[in-house]
Amino acid sequence: MSYAILAASLRSAMQRNDQETIHRLIAEMQPADLAEFVQHEQTDTVISLLRHLPLERRAVAFGYLSVALQEEIAAKLSDQKLGELLQHMSADEGADLFKLLDEDRQQSLLRTLAKEAREDLRKLASYEEGTAGAVMTSDYVAIPAYYDVKRALETIRTTGTEAETIYQLYCIDTAGRLLGTVSLRELILAETDTQIAELMTEDVVHVTTTTPQEEVARLISRYDLLALPVVNGGEHLVGIVTYDDAMDVAEEEATEDMHKGMSIGKLGAGLRRASLFDLYRKRIVWLVLLVFANIFSGAGIAYFEETIEAYIALVFFLPLLVDSGGNAGSQAATLMVRGMATGDVRSRDWARLLGREVFVAIGLGLTMALAVSVVGVFRAGTEIALVVAMSMVLIVIVGSLIGMILPFILSHLGWDPATASAPLVTSIADGVGVLIYFAIATAVLGLPT
Amino acid sequence: MSYAILAASLRSAMQRNDQETIHRLIAEMQPADLAEFVQHEQTDTVISLLRHLPLERRAVAFGYLSVALQEEIAAKLSDQKLGELLQHMSADEGADLFKLLDEDRQQSLLRTLAKEAREDLRKLASYEEGTAGAVMTSDYVAIPAYYDVKRALETIRTTGTEAETIYQLYCIDTAGRLLGTVSLRELILAETDTQIAELMTEDVVHVTTTTPQEEVARLISRYDLLALPVVNGGEHLVGIVTYDDAMDVAEEEATEDMHKGMSIGKLGAGLRRASLFDLYRKRIVWLVLLVFANIFSGAGIAYFEETIEAYIALVFFLPLLVDSGGNAGSQAATLMVRGMATGDVRSRDWARLLGREVFVAIGLGLTMALAVSVVGVFRAGTEIALVVAMSMVLIVIVGSLIGMILPFILSHLGWDPATASAPLVTSIADGVGVLIYFAIATAVLGLPT
Repeated sequence: MSYAILAASLRSAMQRNDQETIHRLIAEMQPADLAEFVQHEQTDTVISLLRHLPLERRAVAFGYLSVALQEEIAAKLSDQKLGELLQHMSADEGADLFKLLDEDRQQSLLRTLAKEAREDLRKLASYEEGTAGAVMTSDYVAIPAYYDVKRALETIRTTGTEAETIYQLYCIDTAGRLLGTVSLRELILAETDTQIAELMTEDVVHVTTTTPQEEVARLISRYDLLALPVVNGGEHLVGIVTYDDAMDVAEEEATEDMHKGMSIGKLGAGLRRASLFDLYRKRIVWLVLLVFANIFSGAGIAYFEETIEAYIALVFFLPLLVDSGGNAGSQAATLMVRGMATGDVRSRDWARLLGREVFVAIGLGLTMALAVSVVGVFRAGTEIALVVAMSMVLIVIVGSLIGMILPFILSHLGWDPATASAPLVTSIADGVGVLIYFAIATAVLGLPT
Repeated sequence: MSYAILAASLRSAMQRNDQETIHRLIAEMQPADLAEFVQHEQTDTVISLLRHLPLERRAVAFGYLSVALQEEIAAKLSDQKLGELLQHMSADEGADLFKLLDEDRQQSLLRTLAKEAREDLRKLASYEEGTAGAVMTSDYVAIPAYYDVKRALETIRTTGTEAETIYQLYCIDTAGRLLGTVSLRELILAETDTQIAELMTEDVVHVTTTTPQEEVARLISRYDLLALPVVNGGEHLVGIVTYDDAMDVAEEEATEDMHKGMSIGKLGAGLRRASLFDLYRKRIVWLVLLVFANIFSGAGIAYFEETIEAYIALVFFLPLLVDSGGNAGSQAATLMVRGMATGDVRSRDWARLLGREVFVAIGLGLTMALAVSVVGVFRAGTEIALVVAMSMVLIVIVGSLIGMILPFILSHLGWDPATASAPLVTSIADGVGVLIYFAIATAVLGLPT
C-alpha cells in the first residue's frame, strides 16, 4: 500500500480508536513514513503510536523524527525507557539526542546504560557540533589486515548485524590504526584464503574528527563513497560517516546557505516547527543592521537634496535604478557564493572571474539602459533619459562587481562567504547607486542657481 | 599521497615533459581528482593526459569531467575512440554524453557499437531530461525470484562486475516485472538453498521513468536507499538510480533553486565554465522584467509628487523603508520556497504558517520601527518620525505576507515556487511600500494648500 493510503487508513483507525488496526498499519509502514505521519501529532499521541512497534523498529522510526520532536518525547520518557531507546538507535543519532538533554538528565541516563554503551555515547557526544566527529557513527566493521577472507566474512556475520554498512570494511593494524579499505564485493569475488592485506586498497580517503561536516559531505559526493572513515589524532579509526548522513548534511548546508543568502540566521528546526520567537530572532538582527546600512542611501539623497528639488522627476527613476544595481549584484553574489560552496569556484579563479564579470555586467547594463531610456524619454524628456541611461550602465557594473568581490573578501577574512547575502549586497549597491545617479544628474543637468 | 602533492608533482612533470613520471602519477590519482586536475587544461592536453590510463579507468575519469569539457573532447575524438569510451562509461553517463552530440554524430557513432550496446544507449538517451529515466542506469543486477541463494550469488559473481551496485539486488518475475528487493547482506546471512522469493522484501519503493529527478533524490534521501528501482508503464524493471547520482541531482537542484531565488536562469555549466553569453542571457531576462516592475514604484512616487515636494525630507527615508519591506519579504519567501523544496512545508500548512507569519512580522515591524524612529526624530522631527515608524510597521507586515503568499500562489498555478525570487518579491514590496509610505505621510502631514 502507498503511504497516502496507509496514512488515511491509520488516521481513520485512530478516530475509531481501533487499536488492532492501528497496530497492523503501523507495522506495515516504512519507518520514515511513520515519522512523517506522527510529526504533526501531539507528543503523547506520538508516544502511544510508537509503542505499537517492537523496540528495534521503534528506535529506527524515532531517529527519523525532527530533533525538536525527539526532544519533546525524551522529556516525557523515564530514564529507563529513554535509555533503551538510545541503545537501539544508531550510535550517531543517539549521540545527537543525548547532546540535547540537560546535564542532570544526561547523568541519570548514563547510569541506566551498560559500561560500553555509556562510553560510546559519551565519546560520540563530546565532538563539536558540525564536525565529522559529531556526524560519524561507531557502528562499522573493522577487520585486522592479517585476517584472511574466510575469517573476515565470519567477522562480518557476527559483528555486522549492528553495523550501518557491511559493504565497505575498514582494515586496521593491531593498534587500531586505519590501513586501508576493502569492499564486500571484493571479498566475495576473492579466494577464501587470500589475506585481507593483499586485497585492501591503501591510501584511503579519510578525515579526522575535527573536519567540518561540509567537507565530509563534499568528499563523499566527490569520490562517490558509501562511507568515509574518520580517524583521531593518532590515525586510529574511530568512526565512519555514511552516505545517507552526508546527504542530510548536504541538504542542511544548502538550506543554511540559502537562508544566509537572505540574511536569515541558522534555524534549529524547519520553518514549520520553529518557534515564533526563534523565527523573529533569526530574522531581526540583519533586518535592523540593514536599516542602518540603508541610512547611507538616505544620506546620499540628503546630500543631493537641491538637485532633487530642482528636478523632482528624477525621483521617479530612483527605485528602478537602485534596485537594478542591487539585483545585478545579488545575482553575481549568489553565483559566486554557490560556486564556492560546491567547490566549482576557488580563490585562485578570482581575477579571471572578475574580468569575465566586467564584460557580462557591461552587456547587462547596456541592455537595461536601453530598456529604461525608452521609458525615460516618454516620461521625462531626452535629457533626463540620458542621465538615467548613463546611470543605469554604471550602477549595474558597479553593483555586479560588488556582488562578485564581497564573497571573496569575506572568505579571505575567514568569514563564511554566504554572509555576502543579497540584502547586504543590495544595501551597499543602493548607497553607491544613489551617489552615482545624482552625481551624474548634477553634472549633466547642472544645479539651479 | 594527498591530492595537493600529486597535483603539484604532476604539474612539474608536465613542465619537464617527463612522460614516465606523468604516467606513474596519473595511475596513482583517484579518477575524481584527475578530472579536477585536468578541468583547467586545454582540451588537447586533457586528451593526451587521459591517454595514460587504461580504457576502463579512462572512462571513469572521463565521467567525472564537466559536461562542457566532455563535449569538447568528444568533438575531437574519432567515432571509433569515442565509441570505445562510451561503452566503458557507466550507462547513465554514456547516455548523457550521447544526448549532447548532434544527430549525424549520433548516427555514425551508433554504427561503431555492438547491437546490445547500441539499443541500450538509444533507449537511455530517449528519456526526457530531468526525469528518472534520464538519470537511471541499466547496470544493475536482477535476479529471478525462483532462484535460490546459491544461484543468486553465482549470478552476482558473473554479471555483477559491470553493475553499479551489487549490494541491492532486484527480484523479478519471468516477464521482468519488479517483485521485490533483497540486499547482499541478507543473501550472505541466509542459507544457500533458501528461495529468493522467501527472502525478498515486497512493496519496494520505486518510481517510473517519467518521475521528476527531484522526487527521485527526495525518495532516496527519505528512505536512506542505496538505489531506487525504476519501472516502465508495464511495471517492468528498466533501471536503477544510485545514491551517488541522487546526491548529484540534489546538489544540482539546490544550485538551481538558489539561482532561481536570485532570478538567474538555469546554467548548463558552473559559473567557472559557463560562456559569457550564457551568463548574460540567464541574467538579463529577469533584470529587464524587474526594471518594468519597478516602474510601478516610480509611478507611485509620481502620484505623490506634491507631497514629496512639500516634505522633501521624506525622500531621505525612502530607500530605507522600501528596502526593509523587500528584505522581510525576501526572507519569508526564501524560508517558504526552501521549506517546500525539502518537503518540510506542504500546501495544507499554508493557513497556519501565514497566521504565524503575521505575528512574526508584527514583531519584526515594531522593532524596526523603533530603530528607524530614533534616526527619524534626530533627522526630521517627531512628526515625520511618526510617519516613518508607522509606515515601517505596515510595510514590513505587508512585505512579509507577500513573500509568504507568492510561492503558494505560484505553486498552485503549476509554476515552480522558486520563481518567487527575492528580486521579484522585493519589486512588488517596493511598489506597495511607496504607496503605504506616501499615503500615510499625506494623511498625517496633510497636503500644502
